[in-house]
Amino acid sequence: MKKAIVLLSGGLDSATTLAIAQNQGFECYALSFRYGQRHTIELNAAKRVAQAFHVVNHIVIDINLNTIGGSALTTEIDVPKHKDVTSVKENIPITYVPARNTIFLSFALGWADSLGIHDIFIGVNALDYSGYPDCRPEYIEAYEQMANLATREGVEGRKITIHAPLMEMNKAEVIQTGTKLGVDYGLTHTCYDPVEDQSCGHCDSCLLRLKGFKEAGLIDPITYVADTFNEESPHLSEK
Amino acid sequence: MKKAIVLLSGGLDSATTLAIAQNQGFECYALSFRYGQRHTIELNAAKRVAQAFHVVNHIVIDINLNTIGGSALTTEIDVPKHKDVTSVKENIPITYVPARNTIFLSFALGWADSLGIHDIFIGVNALDYSGYPDCRPEYIEAYEQMANLATREGVEGRKITIHAPLMEMNKAEVIQTGTKLGVDYGLTHTCYDPVEDQSCGHCDSCLLRLKGFKEAGLIDPITYVADTFNEESPHLSEK
Repeated sequence: MKKAIVLLSGGLDSATTLAIAQNQGFECYALSFRYGQRHTIELNAAKRVAQAFHVVNHIVIDINLNTIGGSALTTEIDVPKHKDVTSVKENIPITYVPARNTIFLSFALGWADSLGIHDIFIGVNALDYSGYPDCRPEYIEAYEQMANLATREGVEGRKITIHAPLMEMNKAEVIQTGTKLGVDYGLTHTCYDPVEDQSCGHCDSCLLRLKGFKEAGLIDPITYVADTFNEESPHLSEK
Repeated sequence: MKKAIVLLSGGLDSATTLAIAQNQGFECYALSFRYGQRHTIELNAAKRVAQAFHVVNHIVIDINLNTIGGSALTTEIDVPKHKDVTSVKENIPITYVPARNTIFLSFALGWADSLGIHDIFIGVNALDYSGYPDCRPEYIEAYEQMANLATREGVEGRKITIHAPLMEMNKAEVIQTGTKLGVDYGLTHTCYDPVEDQSCGHCDSCLLRLKGFKEAGLIDPITYVADTFNEESPHLSEK
């Protein structure tokens, strides 16, 4: 049976990516990171998702990205809040973690090379995260080229492929795809700034998720801080 | 003053690379890793070298490569010993750590991107380490291309350069270059399998180092296990 490494954050994109990899016939190995996040809620979500999909192995690697640089996701900078999704900035967002996907893919590559695996799945998306340089197709292509020169697998002619199956999907398409493949989005976590186990509903990530569910015509099964998950709430209205 | 990140292992190659970066006018930031090595001796060497060169900052990142795969450098596999340097295997050596340079460069890239630095130095060498896929010029070129697509610095047009100044040097040339630039090789550590603070003299790494000093016409200032550092010793004789 062909095998793949899947980067699993516990968010809805990576859960959908895992479902797609399994549906393509891959036996999956899930890889998550404890990277100085302010929240371990998403790692618990990753564990739930990995269990639900019966992955062969799920490992969590500790890395401290705080040491190497500032981002709202790893330091004390405030996560930006928006009234609605239209005000999300178009430049590189403050929540960009320098070289995060490059670091994550590099551990996946090391694990793949030691297991003799040639397929790596990552849930990046160029449409909803156009501000992140490391979520674009040209980045993934360049990473794949490098990976084939970097490793035993690549050098010995077993071509390494970096799969980014969500690249061209909008959030609604991601949710529809995952729903068809049996993903329980109630297991996933998306919010950058949760209050206990409830999502804030106003960070970039919550806004994109809520918009996605709305456009997909589906109900988001997770719990939001009371006033935000409401069809009349300003962040759900289209401008 | 222009700035650079320098990967610093505590070995003679990275110490020489740091000297070259400083000599080229870069203000240097040194980056080392505690990666499940069997020895922390080399990290102590890295600290000594960083201090000797008065780097702006030296950070050590903890990562556990044991989790993602087998190698004689990170697991309990025995380090191979050779009678002389001519018997060092030409295939990918057992001491190859899957994707190690890719992981190291990726942390350097993250640090560079958060500091606004565009130059990264790595002491890889294609001649003496031809068996390692991630020590070849085509790998470094592919990494650089990827890096420029992965980061804020690259995307905003401040070209990132991965410098590998030792790439085409043999070990003797590395040692001669560093000696001219004032590197104290007594501060460095090379051995894969030291006995207390003495180098074994028979692992791949010791053999290449000893051969380098001999060809450079210089005396290696570090201490070897008694019977090995001897001009009459079989590993120093040319076949």
